[in-house]
Amino acid sequence: MGSDSDFPVMSKALTVLDDLGIGYEVHVYSAHRTPVQAAEFASHAVENGFGAIIAGAGMAAALAGVLAAHTTLPVIGVPLKSAVLEGTDALLATVMMPPGIPVATVAIDGAKNAAWLAAQILAVSDPELSSRLKAERTAMTAGVLAKDAALQEKLKGNS
Amino acid sequence: MGSDSDFPVMSKALTVLDDLGIGYEVHVYSAHRTPVQAAEFASHAVENGFGAIIAGAGMAAALAGVLAAHTTLPVIGVPLKSAVLEGTDALLATVMMPPGIPVATVAIDGAKNAAWLAAQILAVSDPELSSRLKAERTAMTAGVLAKDAALQEKLKGNS
Amino acid sequence: MGSDSDFPVMSKALTVLDDLGIGYEVHVYSAHRTPVQAAEFASHAVENGFGAIIAGAGMAAALAGVLAAHTTLPVIGVPLKSAVLEGTDALLATVMMPPGIPVATVAIDGAKNAAWLAAQILAVSDPELSSRLKAERTAMTAGVLAKDAALQEKLKGNS
Amino acid sequence: MGSDSDFPVMSKALTVLDDLGIGYEVHVYSAHRTPVQAAEFASHAVENGFGAIIAGAGMAAALAGVLAAHTTLPVIGVPLKSAVLEGTDALLATVMMPPGIPVATVAIDGAKNAAWLAAQILAVSDPELSSRLKAERTAMTAGVLAKDAALQEKLKGNS
Amino acid sequence: MGSDSDFPVMSKALTVLDDLGIGYEVHVYSAHRTPVQAAEFASHAVENGFGAIIAGAGMAAALAGVLAAHTTLPVIGVPLKSAVLEGTDALLATVMMPPGIPVATVAIDGAKNAAWLAAQILAVSDPELSSRLKAERTAMTAGVLAKDAALQEKLKGNS
Amino acid sequence: MGSDSDFPVMSKALTVLDDLGIGYEVHVYSAHRTPVQAAEFASHAVENGFGAIIAGAGMAAALAGVLAAHTTLPVIGVPLKSAVLEGTDALLATVMMPPGIPVATVAIDGAKNAAWLAAQILAVSDPELSSRLKAERTAMTAGVLAKDAALQEKLKGNS
Amino acid sequence: MGSDSDFPVMSKALTVLDDLGIGYEVHVYSAHRTPVQAAEFASHAVENGFGAIIAGAGMAAALAGVLAAHTTLPVIGVPLKSAVLEGTDALLATVMMPPGIPVATVAIDGAKNAAWLAAQILAVSDPELSSRLKAERTAMTAGVLAKDAALQEKLKGNS
Amino acid sequence: MGSDSDFPVMSKALTVLDDLGIGYEVHVYSAHRTPVQAAEFASHAVENGFGAIIAGAGMAAALAGVLAAHTTLPVIGVPLKSAVLEGTDALLATVMMPPGIPVATVAIDGAKNAAWLAAQILAVSDPELSSRLKAERTAMTAGVLAKDAALQEKLKGNS
Repeated sequence: MGSDSDFPVMSKALTVLDDLGIGYEVHVYSAHRTPVQAAEFASHAVENGFGAIIAGAGMAAALAGVLAAHTTLPVIGVPLKSAVLEGTDALLATVMMPPGIPVATVAIDGAKNAAWLAAQILAVSDPELSSRLKAERTAMTAGVLAKDAALQEKLKGNS
Repeated sequence: MGSDSDFPVMSKALTVLDDLGIGYEVHVYSAHRTPVQAAEFASHAVENGFGAIIAGAGMAAALAGVLAAHTTLPVIGVPLKSAVLEGTDALLATVMMPPGIPVATVAIDGAKNAAWLAAQILAVSDPELSSRLKAERTAMTAGVLAKDAALQEKLKGNS
Repeated sequence: MGSDSDFPVMSKALTVLDDLGIGYEVHVYSAHRTPVQAAEFASHAVENGFGAIIAGAGMAAALAGVLAAHTTLPVIGVPLKSAVLEGTDALLATVMMPPGIPVATVAIDGAKNAAWLAAQILAVSDPELSSRLKAERTAMTAGVLAKDAALQEKLKGNS
Repeated sequence: MGSDSDFPVMSKALTVLDDLGIGYEVHVYSAHRTPVQAAEFASHAVENGFGAIIAGAGMAAALAGVLAAHTTLPVIGVPLKSAVLEGTDALLATVMMPPGIPVATVAIDGAKNAAWLAAQILAVSDPELSSRLKAERTAMTAGVLAKDAALQEKLKGNS
Repeated sequence: MGSDSDFPVMSKALTVLDDLGIGYEVHVYSAHRTPVQAAEFASHAVENGFGAIIAGAGMAAALAGVLAAHTTLPVIGVPLKSAVLEGTDALLATVMMPPGIPVATVAIDGAKNAAWLAAQILAVSDPELSSRLKAERTAMTAGVLAKDAALQEKLKGNS
Repeated sequence: MGSDSDFPVMSKALTVLDDLGIGYEVHVYSAHRTPVQAAEFASHAVENGFGAIIAGAGMAAALAGVLAAHTTLPVIGVPLKSAVLEGTDALLATVMMPPGIPVATVAIDGAKNAAWLAAQILAVSDPELSSRLKAERTAMTAGVLAKDAALQEKLKGNS
Repeated sequence: MGSDSDFPVMSKALTVLDDLGIGYEVHVYSAHRTPVQAAEFASHAVENGFGAIIAGAGMAAALAGVLAAHTTLPVIGVPLKSAVLEGTDALLATVMMPPGIPVATVAIDGAKNAAWLAAQILAVSDPELSSRLKAERTAMTAGVLAKDAALQEKLKGNS
Repeated sequence: MGSDSDFPVMSKALTVLDDLGIGYEVHVYSAHRTPVQAAEFASHAVENGFGAIIAGAGMAAALAGVLAAHTTLPVIGVPLKSAVLEGTDALLATVMMPPGIPVATVAIDGAKNAAWLAAQILAVSDPELSSRLKAERTAMTAGVLAKDAALQEKLKGNS
């Protein structure tokens, strides 16, 4: 992430990864304040055994693109909402990448989905993780249906 | 893709995949006109050996999300520009997914990058493809530098 | 509605329907987390005697469109404002439907109007309901005029 | 429609209605230039036997709202793209109606869907029309699948 | 104004008019809930001796346009910010009027400027009011310069 | 107007003024390139007998505001569409004026309505012009109704 | 700055300038309420020894452009967020300047960066300041890396 | 510039610099395809005697920010319009820089103003260039006034 002030949002990705049993490193690297370290990290990410990089940044959110420029790993960009513009600036700065250097962009403040997407990417070659993801989906569906059932109870109680 | 009228843009993804030697299937499935077939396709994509799904759609671009709802494979969304709104509608409809069901969104009309991203995802577990991607990047860099050199020649000629 | 967190807004539709004496069912079905159940519900809505479906969802609000894809009943979409983008994402994802599969979209967070619209649709073939709606309109007009009268009193008091 | 210059777009609604065998009247009434006639038309629409009103207008598109203010029939609004702003002005002016006076808004320039929606509204109490709409949907699905099949042929031919 | 909930913003216009000694009437008339009364009011505004009409409304803000349709008096529109969209909807619905029926639009929530503009319009044929407006401008300038002077003092105190 | 390239749009205002028999002066004054002359013109506009000022400008359209800052005459702003952004920049730069210095803003490229609005302002104290404007309105209404009648003929011919 | 209500945001620029030991004057001059004084100030800025002008303003933010119109010094514009529109109005009104009269625009509410940019401009001909800026950059980088190190500690503590 | 396809727009900056007799180098360096060379260039720009850097890029326009991250020279960003979104993406990606690393942003496609701004920056310490810029401004003013005079002739001719 581009700043430690992004941690409250980005830490939601860690929770998802923890729940899925996927290891990770977390760093505060800024595309504009520590460009050398950010580039360095991305350049060695393949050989250091990473399978994907998640980059969260706000405003002129260049971080995901800068990392993507230095690696062929999938880079997942999380546009972060800042004090103005509702995150539109970060969304466009993250998603509108030129041909050849994609950033897999998720929703504004979509840190959780960055983790889910990273897991889905790793699961392409990891059948065990793939099964776990499928089980999570089943649980999600069950969760919504349980809420639907609870609503039926509640509405019945009202009538 | 959601309509065969999307083919002129989406076919650019095929060119990239062809160049990288990556096999694929192409389908016209609409989230709204053939929802059953789209869901069916996504539901069996893992067992049918796909490593990623690319979905291109315009307007209220639900296709990528609908596919993502039926698979744990990475789904890459290409928001397509249509007759109005410059593709903003498709961008937001593709990228703003709820937690748990991510869509890896690329730029508006970014069909090429959808293919590059798919390749990068497959390369996570395919060192040979990973090397090919790295070579492509080196070629891209060389291409830009060649254009820079050509520009120096041209400007020298003008002065 | 796509999530039970949408209930505070969507319940305003229920109040309108209750006031008009129109029966309804309420469900939490998500286009992305329970796509099968959502499709199932819509597919059988005609034979189950429904006259219209109201769908409230936020972000990449695919719910209304997905329901519309599985029924020829009028589907009324309520784009919901979420944490970012002021509901613009949900508005565009709801209203910009492709030809053949319309969604009757109301204002962002416009749950009340979804209910009014549903009532107006049912009233097309229900003269008694049509009369009640006409009476409600007369009451609305009277309500505004009463506020105008109250304002005249208040301003006279100030002067 | 608010101007006869809207006819090229709005006439697409007529084609759909003709195909479905649904009768209609077409008028050029402007919310701002013929407000009296527009109000008059809407005020008598129920007693004149109409089942729905479609209103297409651009810019500060007040027409649908003005008609809705004078009738309890469902009013379907078609926001039209004009020379600037990509139709965003018309979309917001049509869809953001206050509580009690809904406009069933379809996509920008979505004249076809206005007709489909009108048909779906009429079909609520017309089982024969309902069947015809269901058949149209089956045909739409078949049309997309035929295009998918044609694409398979074409791609096979290329390889 | 379209609703009495607009009074907190619109009352700022009254303060300006009071300060300038300009008489006025205030009404709650809704373009959508009391269209007949709104049209009636505007139709007789010239003969009732009004010199301008100020209309404040939010969302699909049709009020100013509807009044403008029924009078040749200058109609000043104040787009009001509502719960979503930051007032963009009201701005576009107010300002994008078709040729022949202008609305003199001021800033979002710009009730004060609506009053200033009304005063400037009346002053075109009222030299005494014109002089008062000129004096107000001189006072405004003096007010800003006084704040500048106060700032100089404050900054000097800090150093 | 801010540039002579604005003449094709702004000249439509002249046609309206000519038709209404209202005299005028036209100038190319830029808020940024001839700020002194623009300010000078506005400062003397009252004493030179003008009743209103129309200012058309694009991009960071400061012209209307700068003129308004130097006069208490009503200043009518026409935001002009330029090569990018669909005129949104000019609209916001024209309409969002601070309290005390209003600009009566019309639609993007709305030069005709600027002239109509100027005429309506002058008509406040000119009963003859007021009558002429009322007659124009009657003609506008008749024009729309004639188009409606023509459409009825055309549609009858088709059936 | 255009109003003393802008001081809380704009004072952040003063802190940066103080830290860098760069002298300055601060004024409240409004493009619309004190246009003469604003123009006067800018016209004499070169001869008064200024090296750059920073202008912060909100809404139809004409201040930076008006100052730029009266000087050939670099004018740095800070678009300020006001009560509506998230600062988009001020951004466009500041940045979209016509050819020949540039405004060096920084982020919405970006007062700090206006000061940094002013310092960088002055440093072009001031090697000592240039060294200080370079040292500040090194400190910024160190600051981010320290936060990264602190995060590593924190995460280690959690596991 | 980020791509040689940007040359038609960016070359307008060269014309201005040529006219002002200011030397320059032009390069095609991409933030995403040649990040190392772009960083390298910026890192040595001070010691290589540059006084400012102009960066033109479209879409997720990271180039200006990446250059700014590697130098304390003023970096001027030109957001370029690309095939979609009217340049909004590039504008936000260029201007919304985090504190400490400013980019002096000019209008979308504002290559000329980038050159004018660079000249104004260099002129801070170059009285001769400052005089030339002042003369240019006088010429601009004269140019507008000449167009105004020509318009008076033309309109006189018409009447």
